[in-house]
Amino acid sequence: MTSCSALKTVRIDGGFWGRLMEVNRRVTLPIEHMQCRQSGRIEAFKLDWRPGEPNPPHIFWDSDVAKWIEAAAYSLAAYPDAELEASLDAVVDLVAGAQQEDGYLNVHFTVVEPEKRWTNLRDLHELYCAGHLMEAAVACWEALGKRRLLEVMCRYADYIGTVFGPGEEQKHGYPGHEEIELALVKLHHATGEKRYLEMARYFVDARGTQPNYFEVEAVARGEQPKSYWARTYEYTQAHLPVREQSTVVGHSVRAMYLYCGMTDVAALTGDRALMDACHRLWRNVIDRRMHITGGLGPVQANEGFTTDFDLPNEGAYLETCAAVGLALWAWRLLQAELDGEYADTLERALFNGTISGVSQDGERFFYGNPLAVHPGFDGNGRYVSDDYHYRRSEWFGCACCPPNIARLIAQLPTFLYSTHEERLAVHLYAASQSELEVAGQKVRVVQETDYPWDGRVTITISPEREAELMLALRIPSWCRDATLSLNGERVDAAPITAMGYVRLRRVWKGGDRLVLELPMPVERIEAHPAVRQDGGRIALQRGPIVYCLEEVDNGARLNDLILAAEPEFAVEHGSEGILEGVPLIRGRASRRDPAAWRKGLYRPLVPRSRQSCSFTAIPYYLWANRQPGEMVVWINHES
Amino acid sequence: MTSCSALKTVRIDGGFWGRLMEVNRRVTLPIEHMQCRQSGRIEAFKLDWRPGEPNPPHIFWDSDVAKWIEAAAYSLAAYPDAELEASLDAVVDLVAGAQQEDGYLNVHFTVVEPEKRWTNLRDLHELYCAGHLMEAAVACWEALGKRRLLEVMCRYADYIGTVFGPGEEQKHGYPGHEEIELALVKLHHATGEKRYLEMARYFVDARGTQPNYFEVEAVARGEQPKSYWARTYEYTQAHLPVREQSTVVGHSVRAMYLYCGMTDVAALTGDRALMDACHRLWRNVIDRRMHITGGLGPVQANEGFTTDFDLPNEGAYLETCAAVGLALWAWRLLQAELDGEYADTLERALFNGTISGVSQDGERFFYGNPLAVHPGFDGNGRYVSDDYHYRRSEWFGCACCPPNIARLIAQLPTFLYSTHEERLAVHLYAASQSELEVAGQKVRVVQETDYPWDGRVTITISPEREAELMLALRIPSWCRDATLSLNGERVDAAPITAMGYVRLRRVWKGGDRLVLELPMPVERIEAHPAVRQDGGRIALQRGPIVYCLEEVDNGARLNDLILAAEPEFAVEHGSEGILEGVPLIRGRASRRDPAAWRKGLYRPLVPRSRQSCSFTAIPYYLWANRQPGEMVVWINHES
Repeated sequence: MTSCSALKTVRIDGGFWGRLMEVNRRVTLPIEHMQCRQSGRIEAFKLDWRPGEPNPPHIFWDSDVAKWIEAAAYSLAAYPDAELEASLDAVVDLVAGAQQEDGYLNVHFTVVEPEKRWTNLRDLHELYCAGHLMEAAVACWEALGKRRLLEVMCRYADYIGTVFGPGEEQKHGYPGHEEIELALVKLHHATGEKRYLEMARYFVDARGTQPNYFEVEAVARGEQPKSYWARTYEYTQAHLPVREQSTVVGHSVRAMYLYCGMTDVAALTGDRALMDACHRLWRNVIDRRMHITGGLGPVQANEGFTTDFDLPNEGAYLETCAAVGLALWAWRLLQAELDGEYADTLERALFNGTISGVSQDGERFFYGNPLAVHPGFDGNGRYVSDDYHYRRSEWFGCACCPPNIARLIAQLPTFLYSTHEERLAVHLYAASQSELEVAGQKVRVVQETDYPWDGRVTITISPEREAELMLALRIPSWCRDATLSLNGERVDAAPITAMGYVRLRRVWKGGDRLVLELPMPVERIEAHPAVRQDGGRIALQRGPIVYCLEEVDNGARLNDLILAAEPEFAVEHGSEGILEGVPLIRGRASRRDPAAWRKGLYRPLVPRSRQSCSFTAIPYYLWANRQPGEMVVWINHES
Repeated sequence: MTSCSALKTVRIDGGFWGRLMEVNRRVTLPIEHMQCRQSGRIEAFKLDWRPGEPNPPHIFWDSDVAKWIEAAAYSLAAYPDAELEASLDAVVDLVAGAQQEDGYLNVHFTVVEPEKRWTNLRDLHELYCAGHLMEAAVACWEALGKRRLLEVMCRYADYIGTVFGPGEEQKHGYPGHEEIELALVKLHHATGEKRYLEMARYFVDARGTQPNYFEVEAVARGEQPKSYWARTYEYTQAHLPVREQSTVVGHSVRAMYLYCGMTDVAALTGDRALMDACHRLWRNVIDRRMHITGGLGPVQANEGFTTDFDLPNEGAYLETCAAVGLALWAWRLLQAELDGEYADTLERALFNGTISGVSQDGERFFYGNPLAVHPGFDGNGRYVSDDYHYRRSEWFGCACCPPNIARLIAQLPTFLYSTHEERLAVHLYAASQSELEVAGQKVRVVQETDYPWDGRVTITISPEREAELMLALRIPSWCRDATLSLNGERVDAAPITAMGYVRLRRVWKGGDRLVLELPMPVERIEAHPAVRQDGGRIALQRGPIVYCLEEVDNGARLNDLILAAEPEFAVEHGSEGILEGVPLIRGRASRRDPAAWRKGLYRPLVPRSRQSCSFTAIPYYLWANRQPGEMVVWINHES
């Protein structure tokens, strides 16, 4: 789980992450606060909505506000801002004031449909909202030392604990949209109260057991369980007990949050069978169901997964929240086991499919993050009108994604390091200054780097006093020729590298200086042969950054552009606007001349009709920030 | 329009069309009769359904029965079959018996919702059903000399003529689903009654004028026109007066039927502006919106068109009826103007995207005809379940396609020839014996050929007496090296070829023998550079036949198969089952070995990791007749 202490001890100013975090706190957080207010989400906690009035508080509004609180708290931990803090305190006051006498706290089910409290866990997001408010409460406490919301949410959690559980008098339910599992583990972590971990374990274990609670609940509502609109309990990962699951199915955000909770519970309770299920699910998603951007869930129909190797480009759904969820899950697995594959996936999501969800000016958001778009068609590949362009939006009726990407960006410093006994692991590279607690003493760690644009990382390690520590430096799997030097001496890393980390056990003293070189040639990436959407295509990647072609740089008809079999790439830095200082990939390719076509759509192939052309690829996460037009990630190439 | 006389004078036995026609009459027509009976469609004409009973007659049931009548009549014209004729007569009796005193004839609006008669032309298919029954009536009359249904439908048409028209007392409506326009022209043709042509012209001209009738009608029903479920009158081609239309839009079958009617009216009335609109619409569909199979309408959402150059493969809708409609429209334009482009398109549809709609055993039908499928996904590209395969169905709730393909196949002989004064045009090649009326005398025309499997066509022309006639022989645009000989002497065709036809004006005498050689090398076809779905891909075509790859012949992962830049193709004839005697295209390609992949979905390109492999392509129209699996038409290739 997130260790909020890192927000105060790891400082990222400037550089790639620094810029994103600055836009996040200066632009995105105030905008989201304004949107939550204007849409009524915040005022709703006053509980003054009355039947018959317009704009009834929606079942998931609480969660949007909760994620904003969480994001604001993370940001304030390192970057004090009196105005933002005042907003935060005011919102927390409103939320706290909405708690009922019995501890219950949910706007919709207090003022709109009180008779439906706990009647439809499958669809109505009640426990999901509770979970997000718990995360917000823990963030306020751990990041800012503000205890009010924590107390409110402990009261709510305790009430929930009376309602749900294995006892005869309790409902044997669990959420249709997972979230409370991981949140209860955070609550346990923040309070030390074992009972919250027990509740998390209960919710994890109850899921998918027979009789299926969602059926029991539907019958109690007088409904036919078979008339379930989603048709399958795979939608909520409730088709099987979680320990028996091996395939990631259904709604992708729900899936990721569940797996986070499973991993937390498994790690904290030493539950091997549960961790085995996590590992099986991980293998399935990583080996068969993840887009190259870390995007998950290709179709809108279930906002989720389909089948192995089905990774469409145009029309792919790939909700921002799902990539956020993948990052959070990867981080949890990485805490349980120092395996570079988890950090590679965390990095893949962080540099590509998550941050594509917010515009560079911080003002607009993507819900879906397709890997190709064509004018006239929406993000799901459906024709809208000839002059339509899929662009980021200012807000959504279902606004889960904007505050989710905001809270992810605000907590980026927490992902750089982790410590375990005398081991200090460096997972991600970013210009930063940190003071970490390792084996009982403070260790100052300074990273100097222009990562991810440049692969040279200088790390200075300064423990308060000389000490034997094990430093584990991640070697990203995308890098094939990493070199390392310590105080100017080359280190033979191979013998001391395991699971993607160079492990340097030695006595460290103030000012020890490591230089890690991670060469970043432009790589042509191919997808598994079973991915039918990427046959005959490659994606360009440099370091952890996946690239794309946009029409604004390359003209239209991007799918007619074919890379040569042995291309030469030039990496040139952009000079203006959002591309300033950004490495662009340039090279030559070929395409046909549409002007050379007579009438008609089809003709016998004219093999030498292709003309040489140049192309410019930009990082995928930067797409849709300039003139709209076509975009593709997977590019045809000569084989 | 179809000249039913050809059904008696052009005899196709054996060969490609002969086999299809035989299966059509021996299997498909009886099956469809059975399906229409079992589903209640035929019995419904007894008008004994009563409110509250199950299975109420649906608004479009009449049209399904009508198309079956039409198909049966065409078939019986050349191939007497006492049982089929008895079925036909019985059905016609029932239909005739359903006519109301005022001439009205529609089962649904007689027994289910009589209060809604003529209240919703936009959605309720009333005039569409009338049109199909008119076509059926003309078929019974022209093909079989049976007059009963013709009289019934003239009475109905006359009644319709009192309800709709430009008069002050009349409704200024027109159908939401076009069909009656072309049917009224047929009725005019069969009866000589000018008023039916006038009605057709009225319906064509009224469409899309202001105030929009569908809005007027919606207001009269108490509805908000803006709440129209289809959102745009483009759906019914009623967004503009037809003379102002230039882009094929909306529901593709409706569009084709409208254009048929427009072309009929324009040709018969010499309406240049209307014919100009037909030509503009033709250019748009042929140059920008037609799949290589002659399939039309890529998306299910509107069962129709999207935008220029949007020609998806997997998930493409391409309703069988739309390709049928394209064939019928191309035929009409060809009658108006002897231009090989119309015959090329007719042929494209006839050999590919229409007949793919029925299985080789004649028992199962496709509604949609995608150009690629993947196990687990339906014809519209939506994930169903891992063990799902998109296959033809025995019948549909909305069963327009099965009788449509049946009536098309039954009328194939009508498409071979047309005559105009002393000109005899040969449009399509098929083993056949015909006795045609040209310039006042009978001309016997015998074609000997194994077309489309072989490009050698021997045509013997035997007029009753020597006569100067102009024979126009189509040279298909797919053929680049046609040669022609007459009575053993090579004919220099170039100087006498215009608009895709060799025009031989001479005095013909009994037994004059033409040999046309149409070489059929395997062609790699490329799509226009703006077709993003086909970038880097080619389709294989031989003669008029478009080929595809199926998993049963080539294994899975067809999208990873890449044709070499300079491939060698072998044409080998299949030896068993549906492939017996069918030319198959074989050659070599390359693909990757999935077994050589470590875990994970992505890796840096290994350029020489591709293994040589063989492939076998079969005609597209034959797909989905054997074991299910992947199918692709557009194949990746080295450029």
